Amino acid sequence: MTYCVALYLDEGLVMLADTRTNAGVDNISTFKKMTVWETPGERTIAMMTAGNLAVSQAVVNLIQEGIELEDQDKQTGTILTVPTMFQAARLVGQAVREVRKVDGEALEATDGGFNVSIILGGQIAGRTMRLFRIYTEGNFIEATADTPYIQIGEHKYGKPILDRVAPADTNLVSAVKLCLISMDSTVRSNLSVGPPFDLFVYRMDQCGSAMTRRIEAEDPYFREIANGWSDALKTAYLAMADPPWFG
Amino acid sequence: MTYCVALYLDEGLVMLADTRTNAGVDNISTFKKMTVWETPGERTIAMMTAGNLAVSQAVVNLIQEGIELEDQDKQTGTILTVPTMFQAARLVGQAVREVRKVDGEALEATDGGFNVSIILGGQIAGRTMRLFRIYTEGNFIEATADTPYIQIGEHKYGKPILDRVAPADTNLVSAVKLCLISMDSTVRSNLSVGPPFDLFVYRMDQCGSAMTRRIEAEDPYFREIANGWSDALKTAYLAMADPPWFG
Repeated sequence: MTYCVALYLDEGLVMLADTRTNAGVDNISTFKKMTVWETPGERTIAMMTAGNLAVSQAVVNLIQEGIELEDQDKQTGTILTVPTMFQAARLVGQAVREVRKVDGEALEATDGGFNVSIILGGQIAGRTMRLFRIYTEGNFIEATADTPYIQIGEHKYGKPILDRVAPADTNLVSAVKLCLISMDSTVRSNLSVGPPFDLFVYRMDQCGSAMTRRIEAEDPYFREIANGWSDALKTAYLAMADPPWFG
Repeated sequence: MTYCVALYLDEGLVMLADTRTNAGVDNISTFKKMTVWETPGERTIAMMTAGNLAVSQAVVNLIQEGIELEDQDKQTGTILTVPTMFQAARLVGQAVREVRKVDGEALEATDGGFNVSIILGGQIAGRTMRLFRIYTEGNFIEATADTPYIQIGEHKYGKPILDRVAPADTNLVSAVKLCLISMDSTVRSNLSVGPPFDLFVYRMDQCGSAMTRRIEAEDPYFREIANGWSDALKTAYLAMADPPWFG
């Protein structure tokens, strides 16, 4: 499985992906599920994928090599040439459909089926920063301030913390903490999600200068978050008032 | 759907069930999923069910009316006559198999299938307090101190808090708080889990004197937990150290 989470904030974007892939619990591997494209001063785009790894990798290759766009006089576009983030999301969606044309029938004959989920976020200079979730069908939705996060893969364990404390005005450094807590809640409960993790932090209007970081299982700060969060929760719940009707 | 959680603690048992049933999001109802049987000074047994409601209710009826036990010279047993909690769990498992004999074929022809999960906990005077999870197949497992909780139904959203702070030496009043927090995390994310909730608290070796309580959505203490917990989480995560590598 996979867990990827992205926050769309007033200050910028924070994205975090695990790297575990598995074909059964007895066959796990590490694969990067996050790809970042940058052109200094011009664009920063990051993508995270869940679902069938072969499909995900094919999509990444197609949008890098270029595909014929459906809606622009059949021009060829790549993730580094599309003029807007909306066009970038359409490019990715179209790539998903291209892969389905080639591999869909064979995959749909299996239990897993044709299955990919994608988070795409970023900004092109002079344009709005945006965050999309692209579906297996190639269509997509956009994050808004009402729900400023998008998750793909094993989303349930890491959702309660986001639901409670992730408004759009969260600052970037707090958002990094939130994503790591959400990830830790997931890896504790689902063996098919695991470290290392890939982190992407983008400050709005600073195209081409995102921070990326590989966070290993033994990363001291990640350990501090994982252990410290358990302690903090324990302190917090013990401090809550006891039920008045408890005999 | 359903969410039920039970904690097996040094001090006793705490069990909490929601009451929402649904056939699609446009057809929800309230049904009690917790049943408690008590004989003063002699036994306290509580059961919570998830899955097909007709199957759950048939199981409750069968164990109350009595069924022929497979392993005791074909005697008829009921939940109020079985001599041990182990026999109670076998009785319930056998009831599940009896219902499958009658309704299994028709249900398995549908998408939902034959599907029931049960948590059974309690104590019979002079015997050990026990907590079981009974499967659709009628077999069962028992909670132990390593993982002193059992969940059925929509278990994922409410699991992270239990994973981090639910050791077996948690006292009963703290355990009530924990279960309510776990339930609140679930109802925030899954519309098919909802109030009112049924709470059961049993102090070990006090057979026949469990506390039960129906907790409505507007219960002031439940509101305090739900809102207070969000505030506490926010305070806790903001207080955690910032990543040292964050520029």
